[in-house]
Amino acid sequence: MDLLTDIATTLVAQMQKPTLAFLIGGMMLAALGSKLEVPEPVYKFVVMLLLLKVGLSAGISVREADLLALALPAVLAALVGIAIVLIGAVTIAKLRGVSHMDGMATAGLFGAVSASTLAAGMAMLEAEGIRYEGFIGALYPFMDIAALVTAIVLARMAAARKAATSKNLQGGTITMGGGGGFGGGFDGKMVGGILRDTFQSAAISALVLGLALGIFARPDAVYESFYEPLFRGLLSILMLIMGMEAWSRLSELRKVAHAYVLYAITAPLVHGLLGFGAGLIAHHFTGFSAGGVVLLAVMASSSSDISGPPTLRGALPEANASAYVGSSTGLGTPVAILSIPLWIWLADLVIGV
Amino acid sequence: MDLLTDIATTLVAQMQKPTLAFLIGGMMLAALGSKLEVPEPVYKFVVMLLLLKVGLSAGISVREADLLALALPAVLAALVGIAIVLIGAVTIAKLRGVSHMDGMATAGLFGAVSASTLAAGMAMLEAEGIRYEGFIGALYPFMDIAALVTAIVLARMAAARKAATSKNLQGGTITMGGGGGFGGGFDGKMVGGILRDTFQSAAISALVLGLALGIFARPDAVYESFYEPLFRGLLSILMLIMGMEAWSRLSELRKVAHAYVLYAITAPLVHGLLGFGAGLIAHHFTGFSAGGVVLLAVMASSSSDISGPPTLRGALPEANASAYVGSSTGLGTPVAILSIPLWIWLADLVIGV
Amino acid sequence: MDLLTDIATTLVAQMQKPTLAFLIGGMMLAALGSKLEVPEPVYKFVVMLLLLKVGLSAGISVREADLLALALPAVLAALVGIAIVLIGAVTIAKLRGVSHMDGMATAGLFGAVSASTLAAGMAMLEAEGIRYEGFIGALYPFMDIAALVTAIVLARMAAARKAATSKNLQGGTITMGGGGGFGGGFDGKMVGGILRDTFQSAAISALVLGLALGIFARPDAVYESFYEPLFRGLLSILMLIMGMEAWSRLSELRKVAHAYVLYAITAPLVHGLLGFGAGLIAHHFTGFSAGGVVLLAVMASSSSDISGPPTLRGALPEANASAYVGSSTGLGTPVAILSIPLWIWLADLVIGV
Repeated sequence: MDLLTDIATTLVAQMQKPTLAFLIGGMMLAALGSKLEVPEPVYKFVVMLLLLKVGLSAGISVREADLLALALPAVLAALVGIAIVLIGAVTIAKLRGVSHMDGMATAGLFGAVSASTLAAGMAMLEAEGIRYEGFIGALYPFMDIAALVTAIVLARMAAARKAATSKNLQGGTITMGGGGGFGGGFDGKMVGGILRDTFQSAAISALVLGLALGIFARPDAVYESFYEPLFRGLLSILMLIMGMEAWSRLSELRKVAHAYVLYAITAPLVHGLLGFGAGLIAHHFTGFSAGGVVLLAVMASSSSDISGPPTLRGALPEANASAYVGSSTGLGTPVAILSIPLWIWLADLVIGV
Repeated sequence: MDLLTDIATTLVAQMQKPTLAFLIGGMMLAALGSKLEVPEPVYKFVVMLLLLKVGLSAGISVREADLLALALPAVLAALVGIAIVLIGAVTIAKLRGVSHMDGMATAGLFGAVSASTLAAGMAMLEAEGIRYEGFIGALYPFMDIAALVTAIVLARMAAARKAATSKNLQGGTITMGGGGGFGGGFDGKMVGGILRDTFQSAAISALVLGLALGIFARPDAVYESFYEPLFRGLLSILMLIMGMEAWSRLSELRKVAHAYVLYAITAPLVHGLLGFGAGLIAHHFTGFSAGGVVLLAVMASSSSDISGPPTLRGALPEANASAYVGSSTGLGTPVAILSIPLWIWLADLVIGV
Repeated sequence: MDLLTDIATTLVAQMQKPTLAFLIGGMMLAALGSKLEVPEPVYKFVVMLLLLKVGLSAGISVREADLLALALPAVLAALVGIAIVLIGAVTIAKLRGVSHMDGMATAGLFGAVSASTLAAGMAMLEAEGIRYEGFIGALYPFMDIAALVTAIVLARMAAARKAATSKNLQGGTITMGGGGGFGGGFDGKMVGGILRDTFQSAAISALVLGLALGIFARPDAVYESFYEPLFRGLLSILMLIMGMEAWSRLSELRKVAHAYVLYAITAPLVHGLLGFGAGLIAHHFTGFSAGGVVLLAVMASSSSDISGPPTLRGALPEANASAYVGSSTGLGTPVAILSIPLWIWLADLVIGV
């Protein structure tokens, strides 16, 4: 009984933290049919400021960082991104009622990273006084891009194979060995296209711009007088928006297969554990901090809500956007944000924070 | 002669306060035909931040407040809201050139509360170093909703009576006693609808969200690092917008009956006195602070400029919006804001600040 | 060799300053095809806040300033604005491939002042710890309006002369001495119209409003808690936008005569020297500060990017906007901002900062 009280108390204390409280507040507003809305241009600007802040902060740290200490987590982040998509290929993409294309798009989105969720993780660590490597923000693109590229390449290859098979069956022309060669050239060009699309997207641009300014310029004064002080407040606004958005996406999710609901609820936890494990490896070899391990878990747990969807829409136009966006924004993101305290608790248990 | 100089000096000093100066600056810009404008999305966001701030601040205070100390001012606030509408029913709604429906809508708007005017009052008290109860923001919905519900119910009942009468006169079916029964059911459903519309409106949602977060969560850190420091500056922007808006509404007012001009100029002062009196009662029984008395007067004096109009437009579509919005935004709001120093002076005279 | 290393080091250090770094970052984002964009309403609001800040700051200083100390720089600023347009009349307006009307519009824009560039200059002086007169912001309208009025009057007069000549040649009615009389009345009315348009423009309205509030009201508290702290950060956003804008305008510039490119690159330097010289005169006679001399050079060097174009479009609809806006925003503004360190260096050399 005491244990239950304890768990309940901890849970309530977590819900009362500004980040989660604003998220839940947004969901309740949407559930109660409130007409409150944050205008689109303001939303875009808030996201841009947050990403610039995360990028600047990471860039300023990278400037002084031991690049070897950065290398291992970066490689691990990319591997986690790829692993998440491969897990998706044998789970969600095989489930009943889910087309292979839709399943891969969803897996790609869950492998990609949500800057907002990452920012929420950072804010919660800071509120708890837990230290983390400043360069963490620089790991974001490694995991994000690895996941998106893997998902899109696999989905396109499967579609090409299927098209070739059906063509052959229908008695079309025989392409001898051409499939491989075509696939290779096709892939190279396609990967280039995905990379370009991803780097040109508003979210990654803002993050990389902040990173570049942090590394190559001296934006410390403006960072400390503007970007840093506004961070918490703007994040509270973003959480509010994401809560409202999540609630309104839930209804879209109801229209597609139940498989998505199952995946969207369990995947953030499984992926988070994967990221946590990768973080532990880095902790063992390079002394990666406990806070860093938590943030790697948060990144892996999160699914892309801003930069991912347009990239996927461009690269996989056949995929059902309401399926992958619904499961990501409607369930995946709230689950990922609400599970941040879990990773903090786990890190404390395993390595002590 | 000395007295006149004194009054003139005080008046000028008041006009120089940031809140009033930005309001007057906005009016002058509009009068001079400036093309300066604050884009709509920014305006909505500024209002949302201000309301969240007022709500959060009230919520944090309510958390620690003696609920009994809150109860009396809340009941008084609701009574003042109802009284203002009843006064309107025998003044503006009876004046020549004013239809009953338009008069009641105007009275409802003047009974409802302007969060911006309330925020201006708070900023001016803080600038003068006058203390007030932190929970004041929580009184807003009591007065606001009581006034809107009373006005809409009275207007709808009068319209139903009139329709029934004209039907009977035209030889329609005779409804024996049915009017009352119908009216009752009709009212209950209607009051529910008004309550729902009011709580779902952007303004009340933001305020109640802030209130709920302040009471049930722990947003103190983000409140102190973001919402509180930005408050004065965002209010200066809002005053600028309201000044420009007031000037441009004045021309609409010219088109409707002069009765509105008379009402819009005198009502804020009469209503403010009513609120001041209610505040004095609370002061006598529960030690309600002088600053609280001032803010109750400011609330009563103010007329709703953000949440009220859409509620009224929804509930009383027959009423002439340019009449009630024109008299409220064009004259009522500037008069209410400009008379804030009067309540401070009066509170100092009567109970000492 | 050492000297070259020295220059390169200094150049890199300047580029790393937040103001320039964000400008260059914006240009690189646009060059790389990034989809990042600052929504229009946010952009307008950022500019408005910056102009209010510059105005308020100037107004607060003017309140305490020796008006005689202000008078000489103000007259000199106006003279510099006129001189720039007269130089333009014998350079850009005479170059091959440039119509007289287009040339005068371009000269007017380069004579007018960019508030953003001025703000960048102020931020860079403050970062270097160089003092300047607080009233500098009040000089802006003198140079800006003098240049616009001169350019428009000269362009209109030339067009009227040309029309009269061609009419006469075509055997039209002979107007004896009437040209002058008509021109006079026409000019007076036109100058009034330009003044009204300029003062009503969003940029000058915001600046003059800030100035008026600073002089006649007491906005010091809100200035220090809001406008001043946000200044650097908002400026970094504006520089980002201006960098992106400059890059995208460059392509428009390619379509018009090469003369514009030549003018847009050299004019900011020549005009800056002119402003610097005017500043030295003021320094000699009234002890105008070294920082003030730099800012007069920056104002003269800058070309109007916000308030100028709409004024010119209204007054000289025949002029080719892509020519004058392209050369101003695409080249003139980046050159002006990038040359700010030059004026600081020159001021240090000549009078010591």
